[in-house]
Amino acid sequence: MRLGILGGGQLGRMMALAARPLDIECLVVEPAPDPPAGPVAEVIAASYGDAAALAMLADRCDAVTVELEGVPIEALSWLAERVPVHPSPEFVAMAQDRLAEKRGLRALGVATAPFDAEAGLPAIVKTRRGGYDGRGQRFVTTAAELAQAQAELPDPITEGVVEFTRELSILAARGADGSVRAWPVVANEHLDGILRVSHAGTQVTPQQQVEAERIVTALLERYAVQGVATVELFDTADGLVANEIAPRVHNSGHWTIEGSTTSQFEQHVRAVCGLPLGDTGLVGHSVMVNLIGALPELAALLAVPGAHVHLYGKAPRPARKIGHVTLTGADAASVTEALERVRRLVP
Amino acid sequence: MRLGILGGGQLGRMMALAARPLDIECLVVEPAPDPPAGPVAEVIAASYGDAAALAMLADRCDAVTVELEGVPIEALSWLAERVPVHPSPEFVAMAQDRLAEKRGLRALGVATAPFDAEAGLPAIVKTRRGGYDGRGQRFVTTAAELAQAQAELPDPITEGVVEFTRELSILAARGADGSVRAWPVVANEHLDGILRVSHAGTQVTPQQQVEAERIVTALLERYAVQGVATVELFDTADGLVANEIAPRVHNSGHWTIEGSTTSQFEQHVRAVCGLPLGDTGLVGHSVMVNLIGALPELAALLAVPGAHVHLYGKAPRPARKIGHVTLTGADAASVTEALERVRRLVP
Repeated sequence: MRLGILGGGQLGRMMALAARPLDIECLVVEPAPDPPAGPVAEVIAASYGDAAALAMLADRCDAVTVELEGVPIEALSWLAERVPVHPSPEFVAMAQDRLAEKRGLRALGVATAPFDAEAGLPAIVKTRRGGYDGRGQRFVTTAAELAQAQAELPDPITEGVVEFTRELSILAARGADGSVRAWPVVANEHLDGILRVSHAGTQVTPQQQVEAERIVTALLERYAVQGVATVELFDTADGLVANEIAPRVHNSGHWTIEGSTTSQFEQHVRAVCGLPLGDTGLVGHSVMVNLIGALPELAALLAVPGAHVHLYGKAPRPARKIGHVTLTGADAASVTEALERVRRLVP
Repeated sequence: MRLGILGGGQLGRMMALAARPLDIECLVVEPAPDPPAGPVAEVIAASYGDAAALAMLADRCDAVTVELEGVPIEALSWLAERVPVHPSPEFVAMAQDRLAEKRGLRALGVATAPFDAEAGLPAIVKTRRGGYDGRGQRFVTTAAELAQAQAELPDPITEGVVEFTRELSILAARGADGSVRAWPVVANEHLDGILRVSHAGTQVTPQQQVEAERIVTALLERYAVQGVATVELFDTADGLVANEIAPRVHNSGHWTIEGSTTSQFEQHVRAVCGLPLGDTGLVGHSVMVNLIGALPELAALLAVPGAHVHLYGKAPRPARKIGHVTLTGADAASVTEALERVRRLVP
């Protein structure tokens, strides 16, 4: 079986690594040179909309998926007429556009930040499309700043500020048979708009787990998703508020490689290829730390008890995600201790 | 960092898959076409003793290891003068020869089957070199059969029959700093001389675990091994009796991929590359089932709770190991139930 992937970054790399033991080969389309997926998949060096590359995917693959939402919808639609494409162009299109995303969530009865006319001040003006890791966003406190940001940012959406105690995320997969399996809610630490640490199986109330699963399940079902999707959530006094949707595997799910019976990457491959989903229970305790910008000494990381190091084969560069470390252990205390050690190593 | 591997079978494949997240590339020498390691490593298609291939390894690799013991010792020795080679030619040479192996074990105070003059009848006549998975062995009950087998098998060794209740194995790694980490003793089921099922963390007495660790540690230290080695053991009324040494990762350690904090493959890569060793504790319960000869339906295997499927990309052929499934779970009962389900699927 051969799986086509639009995108050859670290998500594509880890997807290909998860697919290989199932004897599923990956064929990746990626314009950037030396992509992380390169050593573990066949790569077509072309833009995501390149006609010849898409024809090759349609011709050679049994199914096609994406590792990022920033792909041309026309490319997905063209492919979808020729080969099973998961997630659907419709779902990806919704997730590409912050406005469509919020409308889509509200239509499912999911709370979101107030936006546009409702936003008030202070507010965050964001580009509707294309921003990630905090890029393409501006925090404004006055009407003048707001007007300036709306004028300067292309195709802006203005979001009200949500008061939250924690940033959470829920990942789940829907299988070819319509069954949905969610992982336990994750708590995430960000810095400068970039995810730094994800705590697996964080303390949430049973009601919060149920509510988070309701949100992601409604989304997976509404868009008939086959594969993994992620919803970022704010934990607020008024309950969970959805922030963003990722129509794909997600950085806050990397801990599942060691910390769950089935990793998000294998689960996604299983779902997209029409294979049964696996268990999503926790295996012990785990926490993930992103390696951003520069790489600590490998030996020092590996000397931390329960450390699982994943490097992406990317050149270090400020603010660039070049790897992650997942710390696992049978008890929370040992993982917390390992986390403190890794925090001292990670810049 | 680049690691050279003599051998590109499933062990080389899983080693390369474990090395990749550490950004360690593997360069494999393998004469067979389309080797399992092919899709995840760079392959030099040449015999293990090919001068040009060895020169390339010496030139391009930071360290060299083996995935099988059946390599020319001269090739290893030639490499060892130019690049760190683990395990050493001396250790591999000992493990290639059943007679040297038994003498080596006895020199360490380890019990083995009686052999040659001590063997008695019935006995098993084996080729000293090159047999595996029960090939090159003959069971004899009379002096005439013994004489015939000794005459017909090339370079034979005659072993007395050991009465045992179980077949066990112990795997351990020794790091560059001399530290040794052993995994819990494994219980193995064989059929027709081929490993079928390995039970991780089987019931052994604390004394047996200590004794097994003593044996493998003595071996690792005597031969200054940097990497993983395996000792197959018989559980007898008189204690543990060593059967065979594998100077490498081993089929009975495949469960460590999911069932231990550190897999045998990652541990071996860490050790050979001079990186710190990882924890070898159990993660829940696990059991491994080999897929031999023919592949059951992939979807049926994946539908078994806690099933982790590893296919090797090999064409099915009678008695050929083409993959394995590791079943994991938080409790022994769920793993036993999953095992019964997989036994019904596996021919």
